[in-house]
Amino acid sequence: MSAESDRRRELGQQLRVDSVRCSAAAGSGHPTSSMSAADLMAVLLDGGYLRMDTQDLRNPANDHLIFSKGHASPLYYSVLKAAGIIDDAELLTFRDFESRLEGHPTPRIPPTDVATGSLGQGLPIAVGVALAGKRLDRLPYRVWCLCGDSEMAEGSIWEAFEHASFNELDNLTAIIDVNRLGQTRETMVGWDLDRHVRRAEAFGWHAIAIDGHDVDAIAAAFDEAVATTGTPTVIVARTKKGKGVTAVEDQPGKHGKPLDDPEAAIAELGGERDITVRIAAPERGDPHEFSAGGGELPSWEVGEQEATRKAYGEALTALGGMRGDVVALDGEVSNSTHSEMFREAHEDRYFEMFIAEQQMVAAAVGMQVRGWVPFASTFAAFLTRAYDFIRMAAVSRASIRLSGSHAGVSIGEDGPSQMALEDLAAFRAVHGSTVLHPSDANQTAKLVAAMADREGISFIRTLRGKTEVRTPPGEDVGIGGSRIVRDGDDVAIVACGITVDQAAAAAEQLAGDGVAARVIDAYSIKPIDAETLRAAARECGAIVTVEDHWPEGGLGDAVLEALAEADDRPPVHKLAVGDMPVSGSPDELMHAAGIDAEAIAGAALALARERVG
Amino acid sequence: MSAESDRRRELGQQLRVDSVRCSAAAGSGHPTSSMSAADLMAVLLDGGYLRMDTQDLRNPANDHLIFSKGHASPLYYSVLKAAGIIDDAELLTFRDFESRLEGHPTPRIPPTDVATGSLGQGLPIAVGVALAGKRLDRLPYRVWCLCGDSEMAEGSIWEAFEHASFNELDNLTAIIDVNRLGQTRETMVGWDLDRHVRRAEAFGWHAIAIDGHDVDAIAAAFDEAVATTGTPTVIVARTKKGKGVTAVEDQPGKHGKPLDDPEAAIAELGGERDITVRIAAPERGDPHEFSAGGGELPSWEVGEQEATRKAYGEALTALGGMRGDVVALDGEVSNSTHSEMFREAHEDRYFEMFIAEQQMVAAAVGMQVRGWVPFASTFAAFLTRAYDFIRMAAVSRASIRLSGSHAGVSIGEDGPSQMALEDLAAFRAVHGSTVLHPSDANQTAKLVAAMADREGISFIRTLRGKTEVRTPPGEDVGIGGSRIVRDGDDVAIVACGITVDQAAAAAEQLAGDGVAARVIDAYSIKPIDAETLRAAARECGAIVTVEDHWPEGGLGDAVLEALAEADDRPPVHKLAVGDMPVSGSPDELMHAAGIDAEAIAGAALALARERVG
Repeated sequence: MSAESDRRRELGQQLRVDSVRCSAAAGSGHPTSSMSAADLMAVLLDGGYLRMDTQDLRNPANDHLIFSKGHASPLYYSVLKAAGIIDDAELLTFRDFESRLEGHPTPRIPPTDVATGSLGQGLPIAVGVALAGKRLDRLPYRVWCLCGDSEMAEGSIWEAFEHASFNELDNLTAIIDVNRLGQTRETMVGWDLDRHVRRAEAFGWHAIAIDGHDVDAIAAAFDEAVATTGTPTVIVARTKKGKGVTAVEDQPGKHGKPLDDPEAAIAELGGERDITVRIAAPERGDPHEFSAGGGELPSWEVGEQEATRKAYGEALTALGGMRGDVVALDGEVSNSTHSEMFREAHEDRYFEMFIAEQQMVAAAVGMQVRGWVPFASTFAAFLTRAYDFIRMAAVSRASIRLSGSHAGVSIGEDGPSQMALEDLAAFRAVHGSTVLHPSDANQTAKLVAAMADREGISFIRTLRGKTEVRTPPGEDVGIGGSRIVRDGDDVAIVACGITVDQAAAAAEQLAGDGVAARVIDAYSIKPIDAETLRAAARECGAIVTVEDHWPEGGLGDAVLEALAEADDRPPVHKLAVGDMPVSGSPDELMHAAGIDAEAIAGAALALARERVG
Repeated sequence: MSAESDRRRELGQQLRVDSVRCSAAAGSGHPTSSMSAADLMAVLLDGGYLRMDTQDLRNPANDHLIFSKGHASPLYYSVLKAAGIIDDAELLTFRDFESRLEGHPTPRIPPTDVATGSLGQGLPIAVGVALAGKRLDRLPYRVWCLCGDSEMAEGSIWEAFEHASFNELDNLTAIIDVNRLGQTRETMVGWDLDRHVRRAEAFGWHAIAIDGHDVDAIAAAFDEAVATTGTPTVIVARTKKGKGVTAVEDQPGKHGKPLDDPEAAIAELGGERDITVRIAAPERGDPHEFSAGGGELPSWEVGEQEATRKAYGEALTALGGMRGDVVALDGEVSNSTHSEMFREAHEDRYFEMFIAEQQMVAAAVGMQVRGWVPFASTFAAFLTRAYDFIRMAAVSRASIRLSGSHAGVSIGEDGPSQMALEDLAAFRAVHGSTVLHPSDANQTAKLVAAMADREGISFIRTLRGKTEVRTPPGEDVGIGGSRIVRDGDDVAIVACGITVDQAAAAAEQLAGDGVAARVIDAYSIKPIDAETLRAAARECGAIVTVEDHWPEGGLGDAVLEALAEADDRPPVHKLAVGDMPVSGSPDELMHAAGIDAEAIAGAALALARERVG
């Protein structure tokens, strides 16, 4: 026992030394935040608690290790070295432009599942992985998540605590590195471990307070965590930031910078070591697969009236029958987004995330880590709640699909708090994203199917009210496409979603005035069908864009971008929601916003006359 | 006592009847979510707990009543009627296009402080108002906040719980209406009041569990809340959704819709009543004012090198000396954003919000309710965490100022999790927003001062690294302005922030190639200086935009928008960050992103040659 403890203490010192070394080599980084948690990681590795096939990092039976405190990346990379996954030379490339070892961990360096570095995200994602382990993969892998104590102030952490206990995730262990010091001062809780414990217990977790530098206490806590069933465990570890080096140990003002004298620090820590730990192997096992019964996507006849949110629900449900890897999550509005249809058909693959949008997106990210194909839905307005999670999902190279219903003023009476009017802009500005806004049911069904195969963050915006089915069931609809609703070459009207019906009505009205308007349904906003837009620019000479969205960053800006360097750059008149909407009927609100048929016809007529005149 | 209790029960029934009536008149709304909390509000009013001068809703001594469960708007408006603030005729205009009574409350109807309807926001804002009461106004007003039990799943609620107890806000009372039923199902906690109590206590609150339909128990709880000092109180009230009407009471599937048979419901509730409560008057009192010692904004000599984040800190600190109404908040990175300088100079007006960006923005919203001028800062990337709060702040017609530091790839080694690359797009798409991105210290100081007088949501993006001061101290810098860095008319380069230095270097290089480039520093991105851009379009014939941001929704799109209908619409080539960045030096990363001087010169040369060729 004593030899074992000594070995673990030695490994802890190695992790500290390596954290100091790589930060010194980089000239930046967070060594002190790494040193506090070094003993915790040493025991996790040496004690055989972490089970990972280091020869096959993609082995589906492997445990998952997520550093929610992503700034402790020096420790994380030192762990990878100790596990034999990277060598010492690579460790010292930390933060180099050519290195896989970025300032905060990303999936560029396996076995890293997700990017962290925006605090409070690792634990909610770990909940997603653990949910997948329990309910989808049905494998006994464990999820270990190292949290900082500063990030316990993030609300998302408490969403994760609630969902983990509600779902009885005894395959999840959180380790809180309570070094008490944040970036500029002590946390609100300080070293009051009992306060951390009481909060965790109140949220239904098994909680164990320990001295985070006592390797025997750490091992006992891990044993207890593994033995605990029916609920997750949190180990609340009292630690010292910068532990082991007098110049920085438990000192304020030492956050996020390399040590002033790394050589002295390494000497104080007992010098460099070269321990490689034989990491415990996982039990073998294959992930569960859900049988796909077959079936086909729903379709509607031209002329039918249907809400695209309803089509989303029907299409997703059908897709769930065709593919066993599709799963659905919803933020407790499944009867509004219509994901309830999926729940009814495929209950085992439906996850109720309640009113916790950050946890919903994080869970989707966690599930796609395990190869599942998640679709998560809520009102589009409420996806703004998870914008940081969506941003980070892109850094994680995650493939998730988000559905936002009740877009725009056309929802009517509920008022602006429920109206997504910034969602297109927000999603366009996510790296590698796909942004879709179908105008009818048939488009919706085909785009939902396309999203399942799409990499990255894809977003589909659906409507509360019914729209006319204009797209024939057999017509090609795909990401990057668009649809000519009506031909004409006096002026082009580019619309999406609810405004397609309005644009079609405007074109009808314009025809009476002798103006032939081309109506383009730009259901794919990113990528946008630049070729069709450039043809319209060339042939129509003037363009009106119309969207149920603020003027900035949405359809209008996407059209302008597509034409920015085109040979033909006609005037583009953007119609969008300019004033803060109120409550009212959809027609009243679209009229007030100046995005209805009347406004479109007026703008198009003015442009067409300007050209002729 | 009994007569008093009877009167309160009667008032509760009136609030139910009126909730049913106005929802029936509207044909939509959430009467059942209103009926559960009716007795709680009846006692709050009749018991004299809520103190409000209903003849002067702007009396600074008034209590504040915030419906965090904004969908209980029928109850809220029924409360306003019972208090004599609106009449019955207006009550029945609920959700009409012409009405002030929107689907969810907004400040269009006084005394409503803020818009609610995105769950989990009212309580964090209430914390902000209560913080203002304690530390800024120093008045004994109380803040009463009605929460739904579904919204307890939002992490932001727990940020609020932690900050309220940490700040000993005994002027804050939260009331949780535990009707157990969400939109589609029972909440995770159900009627387990004890679980709610344990969580609240673990977060340092005084908690009282009661039967929310027992008017005497409610009164006793309010008495206890008022008598409790040193910590906030939460009343956990067991209620029934739809209470009092058999057809809907405690029934699933009755969320968010008017009653099928309102007449029968009103009869079952004992018919219409016309009680007007004489609301208790507040103690008189005037808000505290901080003395402004004077001083002036800092300035820098042309040619100096300074980081705009540092200039932000200095300017804000000076502004705090010049104006007693300016306050600062920070998300525990004040030594990075440099708001620490304000803290050191004006400690009484500085609020440490720790790693809780949602609570930070909510607190700013709460403080501006009380007339304060808040500036809140963190890394720009982490403001995405609070995007829903920022969106709702616009619906609240709030005036808040946000500062986001460490923008773009130019931060270097920390990697993409810390790099704001979507912030310009996100903030442009906020209604009525102002978006600023100064390139040097002098611009920063003047824009910070301008923000203090600016209505709505204003955002200033600051840089980690130093940039050259190019703007003379005496030059006009203002919202909507821009700056010609260098004249020329072969091509125009529009830059902002870090890319101004790069554009200036590119222009120098281009001059060697015989190309005279005009360099425009577009420090005001919204509103943008359209006149200067149109002149450039007319005179230069081709434009390159360059920004340290994703290609979508930022500077490039703002320039395209400004020129969309201009007489001259030259080709616009957008340079922006196209690929996911990694870690590295600022120079390496700007080069890799294609936004450095070399890339700018290359793009400008190609455009200029195209024109000539």
